[in-house]
Amino acid sequence: MSQLHVAIAGATGAVGAEFLRLLEKREYPIGRLTLLASRRSVGRTLRFRGEDLPVTELTPDAFRGVDHAFFSAGGSQSQAFAPAAAAAGAVVIDNSSAFRYDDEVPLVIPEINPEDAFRHHGIIANPNCTTIITLMALAPLHRAFGLRRAISSSYQAISGAGAQAMAELERQVHDWVAGRSLEVKHQPKQIAFNVIPRIDAVQDNFYTKEEMKFVWEGRKILHHAELAATATCVRVPVFRSHAVSLNLEFTKPVTRDRALSVLRDAPGLAVQDDPTAEIYPTPIEVSGKNEVFVGRVREDISVPDGRGLALWVVGDQLAKGAALNAVQIGELLLRGR
Amino acid sequence: MSQLHVAIAGATGAVGAEFLRLLEKREYPIGRLTLLASRRSVGRTLRFRGEDLPVTELTPDAFRGVDHAFFSAGGSQSQAFAPAAAAAGAVVIDNSSAFRYDDEVPLVIPEINPEDAFRHHGIIANPNCTTIITLMALAPLHRAFGLRRAISSSYQAISGAGAQAMAELERQVHDWVAGRSLEVKHQPKQIAFNVIPRIDAVQDNFYTKEEMKFVWEGRKILHHAELAATATCVRVPVFRSHAVSLNLEFTKPVTRDRALSVLRDAPGLAVQDDPTAEIYPTPIEVSGKNEVFVGRVREDISVPDGRGLALWVVGDQLAKGAALNAVQIGELLLRGR
Repeated sequence: MSQLHVAIAGATGAVGAEFLRLLEKREYPIGRLTLLASRRSVGRTLRFRGEDLPVTELTPDAFRGVDHAFFSAGGSQSQAFAPAAAAAGAVVIDNSSAFRYDDEVPLVIPEINPEDAFRHHGIIANPNCTTIITLMALAPLHRAFGLRRAISSSYQAISGAGAQAMAELERQVHDWVAGRSLEVKHQPKQIAFNVIPRIDAVQDNFYTKEEMKFVWEGRKILHHAELAATATCVRVPVFRSHAVSLNLEFTKPVTRDRALSVLRDAPGLAVQDDPTAEIYPTPIEVSGKNEVFVGRVREDISVPDGRGLALWVVGDQLAKGAALNAVQIGELLLRGR
Repeated sequence: MSQLHVAIAGATGAVGAEFLRLLEKREYPIGRLTLLASRRSVGRTLRFRGEDLPVTELTPDAFRGVDHAFFSAGGSQSQAFAPAAAAAGAVVIDNSSAFRYDDEVPLVIPEINPEDAFRHHGIIANPNCTTIITLMALAPLHRAFGLRRAISSSYQAISGAGAQAMAELERQVHDWVAGRSLEVKHQPKQIAFNVIPRIDAVQDNFYTKEEMKFVWEGRKILHHAELAATATCVRVPVFRSHAVSLNLEFTKPVTRDRALSVLRDAPGLAVQDDPTAEIYPTPIEVSGKNEVFVGRVREDISVPDGRGLALWVVGDQLAKGAALNAVQIGELLLRGR
């Protein structure tokens, strides 16, 4: 395989750090790596394969000769620079929500809709972190039993709000232990010892954008425009893995055993389901792992005719929920269909 | 009002402390207060109205002359001693699940089904903490729009697992800040910076008992045997207030505005719902408050014909979720129908 020129836009963020770790660990075929960030990070260096690489400024001209550009610098930066990167010949794999709802931009989870990736025109969108983690369990069940409706309540780690928010949780906990008053700056309210049911902007229908992402992105990735879906997204004082409580309704009857069998066969998924033996996934235990984990599978007793399931899904927000899925999209392009 | 002889069984626990605080604050008409606990707590004293009262041993003979006995010493202690207390002439208000599903024992939330309290035969059961908090919002909506199905995912504070579990969260956080390894003893897994989707024993249908309590108790309190209900109960690293994400389906159409109007008129409930202005309840903000708080009210976009709602409910687990509701039952008996 030829060696690529790869760029990371937003290299100094929480997802940026995860890109560096995964590209090295997975032996992505990199000949040259360009690290890009906003002007205030220029001058810093980041370690990759034992070398300290300089961070340079994210500008429209930064993408000459770049093959794959991983963007995780926020929606406005993607809006501003991804088209220039694509015009310069790079394939942009964008972790922001800027292009996800554009019909011309594929939205891809490689285990679910890999074929969509090859329809790109220079930009491929990486789905929302909670959407990726949820759909990893939901898509194989949809294929087997025909998903009619999905109800989601999330338990989202602070990593999803970025490196400064992660530092804020850590600082609040230190201050609490030291008996100091707690400072709230990067989250709408105190996050230590609290949960916050508002992530991203409130929409006209009173859902947040984070909640609507699950609806919009779920329909697009599953190619299921009629999917009935609703979400409540909640931030919890956990550092880096998201959990989701799901109630699903299907067109076909489903049992716990048949669901477990479908989930066990699904790629990228690991079943941990023996609650009497304390076997079920939790955020602390899955952090740093590549798979998405499923447990607490139950036949939903509130759905008639055995057509419902309740389950619990957990995945690393920074890995499969962000950088890993993006890197897997790049690997998919390299591998070809 | 004549002065009562009141007993608290389980006086040294987290709910016991809340009983002492509330009985004093609400000027419960107490002439004599007997504090009962297991043998290992005998010799301790607890403060009430400026006096240090001795803790004595919980035995079948401890209830002679007692008018109201508040029990919060765990299910097995209630099983062992509540019948003796009732036989001695006390009215037992029991915070455990021991008698909740007994047809002869009323299960009461004073704002919802006060009339049931007067059918007691010596024992009245206090509902599960999460059930109380959830039903405070759900009951008025049921009366207005006819509840067909309720889907709940909870965010439950560690106070629900008792004083030792609260101390464990605190110790884990101190150890984490100090860079020491974390000890797990009173919870199935690490609770600091984690969430745990298993509360109480796993049942034959793979739901936990905590989850089934919502189903069983909801039907009994609402006198609604056909209610379709499902729950996923999750412990979060929060000290003392529970939150619940609810998706509700009704027989009649409902709008956000009509739902808000019903909720604003409901006793014991406070609406905090302006998410763009960061107005929604969180556990830290409602701790120590008597009301149950509701916010994030949305018309559920996944339910056809405008018959669904999504909402977020938060209440103090130790107050309205336990001791306050029990004290209110006692006050209801004193007031009469």
